[in-house]
Amino acid sequence: MGTKRLGIGLVGSGFMGRSHAFAFNAVGQVFDPPLRPALAMLADRDTEIAAAAAGALGFERAVGDWRQLVDDPSVDLVAIAAPNRFHKPIALAAFEAGKHVYCEKPLATSLADARAMVEAAERFGRIGLVGFNYLKNPIITLAREVVAAGEIGALVAFRGIHAEDYMMDPDAPHSFRTEPEGGGVLMDLGSHIVSLARHLVGPIEEVSAMAATVHESRPADGMRRPVPVEDHGHLVARFKNGALGALSANWLAPGRTMQLEFELTGTRGTIAFNQERFNELQVYAAGDLPGRGGFKTIVAGPDTPPYGNFCPAPGHQLGFNDLKTIEVAHLLAAIAGDVAPSPDFSEAYEIQRTIAAALRSATERTWVTVADC
Amino acid sequence: MGTKRLGIGLVGSGFMGRSHAFAFNAVGQVFDPPLRPALAMLADRDTEIAAAAAGALGFERAVGDWRQLVDDPSVDLVAIAAPNRFHKPIALAAFEAGKHVYCEKPLATSLADARAMVEAAERFGRIGLVGFNYLKNPIITLAREVVAAGEIGALVAFRGIHAEDYMMDPDAPHSFRTEPEGGGVLMDLGSHIVSLARHLVGPIEEVSAMAATVHESRPADGMRRPVPVEDHGHLVARFKNGALGALSANWLAPGRTMQLEFELTGTRGTIAFNQERFNELQVYAAGDLPGRGGFKTIVAGPDTPPYGNFCPAPGHQLGFNDLKTIEVAHLLAAIAGDVAPSPDFSEAYEIQRTIAAALRSATERTWVTVADC
Amino acid sequence: MGTKRLGIGLVGSGFMGRSHAFAFNAVGQVFDPPLRPALAMLADRDTEIAAAAAGALGFERAVGDWRQLVDDPSVDLVAIAAPNRFHKPIALAAFEAGKHVYCEKPLATSLADARAMVEAAERFGRIGLVGFNYLKNPIITLAREVVAAGEIGALVAFRGIHAEDYMMDPDAPHSFRTEPEGGGVLMDLGSHIVSLARHLVGPIEEVSAMAATVHESRPADGMRRPVPVEDHGHLVARFKNGALGALSANWLAPGRTMQLEFELTGTRGTIAFNQERFNELQVYAAGDLPGRGGFKTIVAGPDTPPYGNFCPAPGHQLGFNDLKTIEVAHLLAAIAGDVAPSPDFSEAYEIQRTIAAALRSATERTWVTVADC
Amino acid sequence: MGTKRLGIGLVGSGFMGRSHAFAFNAVGQVFDPPLRPALAMLADRDTEIAAAAAGALGFERAVGDWRQLVDDPSVDLVAIAAPNRFHKPIALAAFEAGKHVYCEKPLATSLADARAMVEAAERFGRIGLVGFNYLKNPIITLAREVVAAGEIGALVAFRGIHAEDYMMDPDAPHSFRTEPEGGGVLMDLGSHIVSLARHLVGPIEEVSAMAATVHESRPADGMRRPVPVEDHGHLVARFKNGALGALSANWLAPGRTMQLEFELTGTRGTIAFNQERFNELQVYAAGDLPGRGGFKTIVAGPDTPPYGNFCPAPGHQLGFNDLKTIEVAHLLAAIAGDVAPSPDFSEAYEIQRTIAAALRSATERTWVTVADC
Repeated sequence: MGTKRLGIGLVGSGFMGRSHAFAFNAVGQVFDPPLRPALAMLADRDTEIAAAAAGALGFERAVGDWRQLVDDPSVDLVAIAAPNRFHKPIALAAFEAGKHVYCEKPLATSLADARAMVEAAERFGRIGLVGFNYLKNPIITLAREVVAAGEIGALVAFRGIHAEDYMMDPDAPHSFRTEPEGGGVLMDLGSHIVSLARHLVGPIEEVSAMAATVHESRPADGMRRPVPVEDHGHLVARFKNGALGALSANWLAPGRTMQLEFELTGTRGTIAFNQERFNELQVYAAGDLPGRGGFKTIVAGPDTPPYGNFCPAPGHQLGFNDLKTIEVAHLLAAIAGDVAPSPDFSEAYEIQRTIAAALRSATERTWVTVADC
Repeated sequence: MGTKRLGIGLVGSGFMGRSHAFAFNAVGQVFDPPLRPALAMLADRDTEIAAAAAGALGFERAVGDWRQLVDDPSVDLVAIAAPNRFHKPIALAAFEAGKHVYCEKPLATSLADARAMVEAAERFGRIGLVGFNYLKNPIITLAREVVAAGEIGALVAFRGIHAEDYMMDPDAPHSFRTEPEGGGVLMDLGSHIVSLARHLVGPIEEVSAMAATVHESRPADGMRRPVPVEDHGHLVARFKNGALGALSANWLAPGRTMQLEFELTGTRGTIAFNQERFNELQVYAAGDLPGRGGFKTIVAGPDTPPYGNFCPAPGHQLGFNDLKTIEVAHLLAAIAGDVAPSPDFSEAYEIQRTIAAALRSATERTWVTVADC
Repeated sequence: MGTKRLGIGLVGSGFMGRSHAFAFNAVGQVFDPPLRPALAMLADRDTEIAAAAAGALGFERAVGDWRQLVDDPSVDLVAIAAPNRFHKPIALAAFEAGKHVYCEKPLATSLADARAMVEAAERFGRIGLVGFNYLKNPIITLAREVVAAGEIGALVAFRGIHAEDYMMDPDAPHSFRTEPEGGGVLMDLGSHIVSLARHLVGPIEEVSAMAATVHESRPADGMRRPVPVEDHGHLVARFKNGALGALSANWLAPGRTMQLEFELTGTRGTIAFNQERFNELQVYAAGDLPGRGGFKTIVAGPDTPPYGNFCPAPGHQLGFNDLKTIEVAHLLAAIAGDVAPSPDFSEAYEIQRTIAAALRSATERTWVTVADC
Repeated sequence: MGTKRLGIGLVGSGFMGRSHAFAFNAVGQVFDPPLRPALAMLADRDTEIAAAAAGALGFERAVGDWRQLVDDPSVDLVAIAAPNRFHKPIALAAFEAGKHVYCEKPLATSLADARAMVEAAERFGRIGLVGFNYLKNPIITLAREVVAAGEIGALVAFRGIHAEDYMMDPDAPHSFRTEPEGGGVLMDLGSHIVSLARHLVGPIEEVSAMAATVHESRPADGMRRPVPVEDHGHLVARFKNGALGALSANWLAPGRTMQLEFELTGTRGTIAFNQERFNELQVYAAGDLPGRGGFKTIVAGPDTPPYGNFCPAPGHQLGFNDLKTIEVAHLLAAIAGDVAPSPDFSEAYEIQRTIAAALRSATERTWVTVADC
């Protein structure tokens, strides 16, 4: 591990905030990062909550106001795990203060805000990385290599879904997920499957989408209020390279806990993946002898880096938090100037723009060119 | 088995023709049908081919002209397993001659022709059944019962695909499948997934589709000629009951041999199925105790009729040809007046109309209401 | 199909008797057998039952006494699907009458009886084939070819089980399965996994086994009577070629309907199979590039003969009754002198001897050499 | 996290040593342990290696001699991840020095040594925990609860295997694994499946085993030397409660990377598990309505504690290193007196004794009572 300290300021200590803390804590043991992350400061919505979380997660200091954190000289990187509507103001302030930013997806609650964040990252010349948790999975990196090596030929179709069931209960209350700005399942889960589609196939040029709100009201403030966002959405898409896609997002899919699933069809092979078994990749490549062809189950191991940093033996399996540790290792390398950050704010913006196009399509009942959004 | 003879006249002795013959031969042993099918006559494109097939399959007589078969008094039912462009003339002649018709899908090569066939069936009051091979699977019948009993709640989304790889080779030649009228993968395979969608969810009101031709030319008559139909297509759909769908069809999907796969999401449960393992149904129903919920793999057996007619022990598995035998048992019951035929010509017409709407959408780059086709 | 008639006399019309009838009826259409089977006569325990079954299954005549069937000049082959204790007398009488015999497993209720049957087959020079339903599966034939071609190297270990749950209920009554002679799960199900082990690996020289009776009494004649046979048994085995085995049989395994499952380990590869998905074979063969190795799922199709006789398209799947049709096609070829029958009575005897050795081991609490039984 | 410091002294920095370090580093964030582990000292076979590892893993000090570590006052717990032959001397010295011990499996290279270690733990009244990595998996804890609640009835049979392929290459060299004392696959991998069998079913009374050495020599010191231990072994077993078992271990199983797999049969249900997909448990419980029964795939989540400490959302999956973190959390609780350590040295001794009985059985070709070893 490098000896140069990188002060981490974490905003938010919920699900993703804890995961950030785990990753910053683990990265120095698992990898040999060029910088030494120090858990400098944690901010949450009030001082008490922040102090408790800082104690549990090992941060040196705690504050009830993220602005203090952004301005604190001990903080070099601002990690944003706060509700979506805070992403923009925190990121902009952080960049302005000369800090790097590690932001959870989605980038912002509107495309205009996301655009402003991309511009800020560029203007201030700081690193901006967006936490699309699933892209750094070694088995996804393998999938990219299989594609790049031409092992499945030219790309034909990408069929994918991200479905879970956390909003299945009609009495699940309103939250940031159901806010008219920045909410909805296409933003929340759809952005993951779009990020994978772009990661593996490339930019999407055109979409046509349908979406529906199944549970039309949910509890809030002691009464039921209308839900202004969709519960599930489905789109067909045309990629720039001519491939076609069919993508779905659903947050009330009973029994689905992590169905981030796709199959990628090429002219000479097929790749299939499901995050529910994310240490495996199904690959079919034409060319076997008769009676010997079939889908192969490839299991993550030292041959699919950086798995070996976690475990020298194959098949032992990485967990969700390990994926975040890989993401953080990449972030540190990017800040040290060793690699370009990916997905950066610009990529996150393009993902969000694709979602925006789908939402417009669903509303206007027409095909929409992504570049027009 | 009933003693009343039903003379079977089979047109075509290829893949599906043989399957018909197997089914008519087996049905009397496996079931106790109200009519006794007799393999009366087989027609194929010339007398020699027909005679050879009739000998192999056990038909009493053979002819080189289907018109003779239709008019023959020994024939009571005309089974059409000929190329798609012959469906209409044979069916119309058969109805006119007072015969029942068992026709392979798709019904016709144009929507107008299909309409004419529906009208002929009605006018002459004969039974018309269309061979959508996969609908009579006991495990699909179970799926319908699970839906009907409300076990998965209200229907939310149907996501499906039918993909195989028989056209994956760019040198696979032109055939009836690539004819501008009635060809294309949406008609060939897409009709199966649409038939399942309608069978389980109901009518589709509106679609938006994208389609593409990957191999732009194929061999024919010693040269390469352009391919006028799509190799894969994808659509989003709105069902009459408000559910949404995402459907795909692909005949150059490497490694896929029988991926007729869907997941049906309800408000309280999920059903998943893949024809590659068609004796199994995955069912999730909410309501288990914490830590005890999960997708259940239900295996076909005597509790999923008519499996027990084939085998008294569960888990032994039906094969593809057994599905056709169930279809034929249903056909005989329909001719005897015991049940209404399903899918009848009218249902096959609606399936075809949905495909036509998708094709128009893909061409006109717009959403299309099925009723407008 | 050959024109020479082969008169079939079937004894027993239960589960396996019907399956025999289905197969004899189908074989002429699916294959091009050298003989033409004619459903000549069916015998069952009384005339009435026999007549009803003969009508349903299409046999020309029915009798209430199998001796009449054996002696009838219209019968050339006696198919034995009667309870185990009848196998020996029927087979011996049939051979003596110059008939061929197709007998369901297990061969007999004692090793001495089985030996007598082998000798009778040899003495009278007739064909004797034993119905081990699962050996003729095209995917098992593929497994043998993979082994024979050296694709998994030298054989190291065979680990298998046959488990179902039909005796799970402690109130399931006594039957031929629980008779002290010839009963027990090792004979009933264990013989299947032993037959597969011998089919793929070769003879077993030595065994050590443990067995237990879980439900110590079952209903019979209005009272509960002790169960004299085991409900489950487990053995380790040494094959002649040095490979080792671990085999289990269990007929009260909840939720298992057809778990005839094995994994065969070689020095350079592995084969895994489960009859619950019997159209698939899992094969791992060493030698792939780093990061590209994995178990391959091979799906039955025209490249795994004789699948193509049933269906020209891969992946459509054979069913249980189709396996029996393949067995019958093999039987007809053997009777016509085209192939050696397999598994013949001698092979069935060796399987039974292996089971007998296991049972002795379990009783005497010691290792047992199969040749000593 | 408690404020009381617990000084960790780690001996060995290979595969398991790093895993220990990861776990001690993570446990304070993920759990709220009663003690605060401090990475005090790391020992390895020379000072240089130890220093490099200490730097990478975050230990305060490094030594080339484990005796120094054991005696160092900053060390309260000695974690032993050194080759098997060092387990006994280190553990004995540590207990004598008043330290707690956390030892990787197997406990020792002989049963007598293991016995001595158990006695030392008792004599000095220190905590001894043995690292059987897979027992603390939340889904295994669920399996135990399902058993304890009677959901699968009385236990009937346990069928298991642990197979990997790391010794598949005949040129894989000699190592501690192939030493005559304490080596062999039954000790290395077999101990894991025995530990699971005891964890879920209870003590094993009697075994009969076969074992074989496939690759009879391996490289060492520039030449090929004979291999004195088995490459695979298989045993049948009788548990104290009357259940039977069939267990296998194989370290040259091609394509297997983490096949720690079992099925546990009860009178009313079945549990199946494979470590290759260790966040899932297959459970069948009798009692569903006809046509609704089947194996259920239960996925780890907050309802299977302590999964929720790692992630509040189900289905996101734990990784191998997370299992070690759970083990360490348990260790800290045991040291603090909150729980009894499990598996303690006594349990590890019983596991080893079962393996010793199997090895004796394989050599003496007879059944062996475990209590006689």
